[in-house]
Amino acid sequence: MSESNGSAILKHHDNKYRVVGTRPVRHDGADKVTGRAEYGADVRLTGMLQGFILRSPIAHGNILSIDTTEAENLPGVHAVITGADLPDPGDRVAQLGEGAVNLRHLSANVLAKGKVLYQGHAIAAVAADNIHIAEEAAKLIKVEFESLPVVLNVLEAMKSEAPVLNDDVQTVEFGEVIAEGPTNVAAKFLYEQGDASAAFEKADIVIEREFRTATVHQGYIEPHTSTALWHGDGRCTVWTSTQGAFTVRQQLAELLEIPLTWIKVVPTEIGGGFGGKIAVYEQPVAVLLSKKSARPVQVTMSRTDVLQATGPTPGSYIKVKLGADSNGKLVAGEAYLAYEAGGFPGSPVNPGCMCIFSCYDIPNAHIEGYDVCVNKPRTNAYRAPGATNAAFAMEAVIDEIAEKLDIEPLQFRINNAAKEGTRRPDGVVYPKVGLIECLEAIQNSEHFKSKLDGPNQGRGVACGFWFNVGLKSSVTVSVNTDGKVSLIEGSTDIGGTRASLAMQLAETLGITAEDVQPIVVDTDSVGYNDITGGSRVTFATGIAVCQAGVKIRDLMCERAARIWECEVNEVRYEDDAHVTGPDGKRISFQDLASKIVETGESITVSASVNAPANSNAFSVHCADVEVDPETGKVTILRYTSAQDVGTAIHPAYVEGQMQGGAVQGIGWGLNEEYVYNKDGILMNANFLDYRMPTCYDLPNIETIIVEVHNPDHPFGVRGVGEVPICPPPATLNAAISNAIGQHMYELPMSPPKVLHEILKNSN
Amino acid sequence: MSESNGSAILKHHDNKYRVVGTRPVRHDGADKVTGRAEYGADVRLTGMLQGFILRSPIAHGNILSIDTTEAENLPGVHAVITGADLPDPGDRVAQLGEGAVNLRHLSANVLAKGKVLYQGHAIAAVAADNIHIAEEAAKLIKVEFESLPVVLNVLEAMKSEAPVLNDDVQTVEFGEVIAEGPTNVAAKFLYEQGDASAAFEKADIVIEREFRTATVHQGYIEPHTSTALWHGDGRCTVWTSTQGAFTVRQQLAELLEIPLTWIKVVPTEIGGGFGGKIAVYEQPVAVLLSKKSARPVQVTMSRTDVLQATGPTPGSYIKVKLGADSNGKLVAGEAYLAYEAGGFPGSPVNPGCMCIFSCYDIPNAHIEGYDVCVNKPRTNAYRAPGATNAAFAMEAVIDEIAEKLDIEPLQFRINNAAKEGTRRPDGVVYPKVGLIECLEAIQNSEHFKSKLDGPNQGRGVACGFWFNVGLKSSVTVSVNTDGKVSLIEGSTDIGGTRASLAMQLAETLGITAEDVQPIVVDTDSVGYNDITGGSRVTFATGIAVCQAGVKIRDLMCERAARIWECEVNEVRYEDDAHVTGPDGKRISFQDLASKIVETGESITVSASVNAPANSNAFSVHCADVEVDPETGKVTILRYTSAQDVGTAIHPAYVEGQMQGGAVQGIGWGLNEEYVYNKDGILMNANFLDYRMPTCYDLPNIETIIVEVHNPDHPFGVRGVGEVPICPPPATLNAAISNAIGQHMYELPMSPPKVLHEILKNSN
Repeated sequence: MSESNGSAILKHHDNKYRVVGTRPVRHDGADKVTGRAEYGADVRLTGMLQGFILRSPIAHGNILSIDTTEAENLPGVHAVITGADLPDPGDRVAQLGEGAVNLRHLSANVLAKGKVLYQGHAIAAVAADNIHIAEEAAKLIKVEFESLPVVLNVLEAMKSEAPVLNDDVQTVEFGEVIAEGPTNVAAKFLYEQGDASAAFEKADIVIEREFRTATVHQGYIEPHTSTALWHGDGRCTVWTSTQGAFTVRQQLAELLEIPLTWIKVVPTEIGGGFGGKIAVYEQPVAVLLSKKSARPVQVTMSRTDVLQATGPTPGSYIKVKLGADSNGKLVAGEAYLAYEAGGFPGSPVNPGCMCIFSCYDIPNAHIEGYDVCVNKPRTNAYRAPGATNAAFAMEAVIDEIAEKLDIEPLQFRINNAAKEGTRRPDGVVYPKVGLIECLEAIQNSEHFKSKLDGPNQGRGVACGFWFNVGLKSSVTVSVNTDGKVSLIEGSTDIGGTRASLAMQLAETLGITAEDVQPIVVDTDSVGYNDITGGSRVTFATGIAVCQAGVKIRDLMCERAARIWECEVNEVRYEDDAHVTGPDGKRISFQDLASKIVETGESITVSASVNAPANSNAFSVHCADVEVDPETGKVTILRYTSAQDVGTAIHPAYVEGQMQGGAVQGIGWGLNEEYVYNKDGILMNANFLDYRMPTCYDLPNIETIIVEVHNPDHPFGVRGVGEVPICPPPATLNAAISNAIGQHMYELPMSPPKVLHEILKNSN
Repeated sequence: MSESNGSAILKHHDNKYRVVGTRPVRHDGADKVTGRAEYGADVRLTGMLQGFILRSPIAHGNILSIDTTEAENLPGVHAVITGADLPDPGDRVAQLGEGAVNLRHLSANVLAKGKVLYQGHAIAAVAADNIHIAEEAAKLIKVEFESLPVVLNVLEAMKSEAPVLNDDVQTVEFGEVIAEGPTNVAAKFLYEQGDASAAFEKADIVIEREFRTATVHQGYIEPHTSTALWHGDGRCTVWTSTQGAFTVRQQLAELLEIPLTWIKVVPTEIGGGFGGKIAVYEQPVAVLLSKKSARPVQVTMSRTDVLQATGPTPGSYIKVKLGADSNGKLVAGEAYLAYEAGGFPGSPVNPGCMCIFSCYDIPNAHIEGYDVCVNKPRTNAYRAPGATNAAFAMEAVIDEIAEKLDIEPLQFRINNAAKEGTRRPDGVVYPKVGLIECLEAIQNSEHFKSKLDGPNQGRGVACGFWFNVGLKSSVTVSVNTDGKVSLIEGSTDIGGTRASLAMQLAETLGITAEDVQPIVVDTDSVGYNDITGGSRVTFATGIAVCQAGVKIRDLMCERAARIWECEVNEVRYEDDAHVTGPDGKRISFQDLASKIVETGESITVSASVNAPANSNAFSVHCADVEVDPETGKVTILRYTSAQDVGTAIHPAYVEGQMQGGAVQGIGWGLNEEYVYNKDGILMNANFLDYRMPTCYDLPNIETIIVEVHNPDHPFGVRGVGEVPICPPPATLNAAISNAIGQHMYELPMSPPKVLHEILKNSN
């Protein structure tokens, strides 16, 4: 175990690597710190127009009419579009990566069709010579509304008397309609194992609690922005800030009914996504405006647009009931999760259901979840979507059970932790996983062993679980005559994956990370790649990279055999980046590379994978807080995150993910929430009023990298990006409760709410 | 033989193709006709500066001092550079494609070092907020010169008393120094076969003539333009109009001493190159300005810059002596070629030597050539470089011999034509070639059989030969779920190669040309590709495309086997783009493609080739002219071009190449020339005074495509781009001589010169 500046690495394997585990400067670092990196809004095309989207001022209503005449007549305006310009997708459903998307809803979210479902819902768009004319023109669009009653709360929206948002929504349970619509309840999910009722009967202790969480936004730095060029022959090129260029391509193909090969999506540098830059918003609008104006069009959202009308994570209602025996063994669990979908169905309640009990061995379980439409923006993925809400609820009940049993909560977690062979309620039986190693890492940490030293202080620990998806990745690798290697990838680099992929190629070839040039290219220029999401890139694209590396080794051996005029089976690729042959022949990778052009065809290979999804990510956090008894403000004194990362390819970026996830979870836990008035008007659609944590609110986040090798990856990698957001709200709840003697049941645990609990207690 | 609008196709094979030989709309057509295609000067980067290059006002001189202080101090100026900013390459030589380049000379041509060798020679460069400030600043750079005597004529420059341009030049013959320098004669080339002296002794008729040709420019529509972004970590990106992005990358790496992997060259759409956009000019300047200013910098040449300071084709002096026996058989040939290299060595005199006798079976031959520096811009490749000059000289002597022997000149050519088994003086023994088929195509043409019908009219026929190079190409192909295919290529598309390559992939896969999306990408995004030049792309990159197509067929079979759960050897890829399997199973390419994402990894392959260079291109032209006896103006009445193209992938673009080559050759033959005053000042550095033919000067160029299958290519392709420029000056000379009764010996055959001959004759 090495330790410095609050970061440690605990290896549970004895693999030795040359490049993996080192911390080279990231390949895209200089461009980013010197302002040279090209982000979406940096794109400038000859004759480019600016687009502006007119948004609904009300949260729920029918659109009676839209008159765009005056806008169209304003000098400098080149095109005006409405929902009528989007083809009617009928009942078509598109498969996007792992999920199915209702195209009618996706389309109506891009530009409203007859109805607005939330404040900020896009209604029309204008392309003009500049943004000022475009905004002016948007004001000239006359929209007549019939206002409808608004429903904002998930439980309210489930009631039969609630205003219904979508006429076409029925309740579906795993593909089967279980309640005819129209209804706001779009889906039910059910997972069961053992016999929960019977087990609760026998349990020595049972605790049931209700929880509520707020709508929160990913808060990426860069607003959504896209530039589209409609070509004269029906093809189009779209530059956009996205987590998945291929997914944007597919959505555009589906929504606009264009063959997907005719759409080229160029992913620009991305200023954060966290799941929020997967669905399309302004991309189809930019394309339609370009088509109509015959000019390139750029559409960039404001921060207000982003908060009002992109996809935050759902507010939710969760009820958790746990039963344990007197030995401290969990025997039964029951969970009820209702997640706000926003205006259209699609909340991440299903993964919430699948995650809620997944840190524990609970032989008898019943989990049901509901996806419910409310008059808020259509929710979307946000880092481990659905899991943070669930962990907040679950971990609080775990703490209360442990308290009741008088077992130290961390030890209680170790005693009940999921491990190899544990069966989850969704049917998965775990292979080797690293939760216990993480719990023990916290238990053995200097932080956990230290004493709190003041009044109003408390310490909490909580766990989080999240999946690692696999999915498809494709890369192309070329050896250049200078002995360096070009690595062409289609995975947008959000969290340092250029570096983590380059390092895996370097390790495979025995060369340095600096000798690999990783390049993220457009959808035309590399094979198919699923999104950068699901904690998959370093893992899944990494497998493709390793496969390409092995092919390169073979081709380098072939070339050496050609030069040495010997059989290829007499030639070996050595791990120190040398090729050896008969009679003691030996040539370095660099020297052999320099001979490629003079001795034949170039050495270029492609590799494509459909990666397995058997690995699982666990994270355990520990926080010390001090609660101001007069204001309820929570100050974090110390924070440590332990996570099973399989193998840390680039430990600094793994630590960055662990720290970033913790920080986002802390914001979610303590401050962030969408504040709506009763009419569904968002009252804090800006970063002054929507309160994200800044560096002044946070301590250093200490990290303990736990390495429990993942056998599905050549270097043992697990996905690391998402799970660190799961534990923080629960961890802080535990710490606050430790400080004030009272658990919290609602997020965010902002000063007024904490103060309310303090005052309630003191009364 | 099909014929319409003066175009015919004569097939000498019986291959049947579905796509090859059809005429689909080119994939890049809509963009080009609607102004959406992105050319070099369309690039706009955030914070981009404009660069301007200060050029020498004199043709020969030492630079005593350069003072850039005032320029640097001008507000709005961000960087000023001179030759001192380029590293000293010492005696390093770089291999670029097939040729070796002296880096000291290449570097000193980019920015002069101590000496200027021609008017327009770049001396310094400025980057400023806009082009006006940059130009203003350039005027503030103080350069002190010591003028030196100027030499402009190749024979003058070879004299011992001539002013010598380069101190470091010695005369080299195939790698061996045969005369110590300093000298203007940089190289001697010698090819011999048989015993020419003895054969001349025995010949029944011998004719020897001297010829002179002028310096002419490629005259591409788009001036050179580049935009460079120097990244903060020493990498750079360069957007440029070039025939070879990889070659630009290599030149930049060599000149700037940067690892080539760290240079990304993005080839923009190109407005013509013809050989003139291979060497770097403004690219290193833009990079250095970007490095120094820490801003992106664009440098765009004016037309005057292009004419003064890029690489025209050499003026030359050629002497040809031929001997024949009384039966009309050529028995001996002797040629002496001296080509102007311009300021630095490197004229295409060697290919001139290799081409001059290559249309004929001449058993005894002696050819010598000289590469000679003069105070003109450094010459560069221009479509079949060196061959047009040679054909002009050779074909005139052929005509005179035929006339003397009273054999119809076309029949004389057929009698002596090179064919399978003919040995060239450079040692090559021809495989099957199509010269006789082309000669016969003209002989049998309606044009040749027609009668001239007026006074002062004449008809001429001439041949041309040019090589086809092979070299390296690399492509990547992906199958998309919409059943279309992306074809990633690194060969800049100048003459319709997106279409001709897409068609070859379509033919290989059995799909339509429209279902292939060809994309030209940057140097990072595809394996190594040599230049678009040497008539190689449709041929050599085509082979790579076909190989990739075969790999795709295999992978589609594998996928079908996976879906059908059968062995892959039970599955067949049918030529009608269906895959068949056991039990009558059958699935279309499109349907199988739609299942790729759901059934596994993406289907993407790369293929790289080092193509053979055994094929040979021949062209025979026939022209009817009318000469105005009062002005000497030549009007072309009718013009037909026959060419062995192997197989015409896209006949319209082959015809376009044949027509374009003829038109450039006609300009070269009749009007184009660099006019210098005695001080080496170019007097016609603009398109008003440098007289290129326009549509008003030209008849329809009729074409006869002759298809003699090339066994080195899957569909029998030969390179077609260059050879059509070789015959026109010779053809016009023959026609003019037929009209006025007098051969011409100097290019261009402009009105004053023709009139001079007419008057000389009539005196």
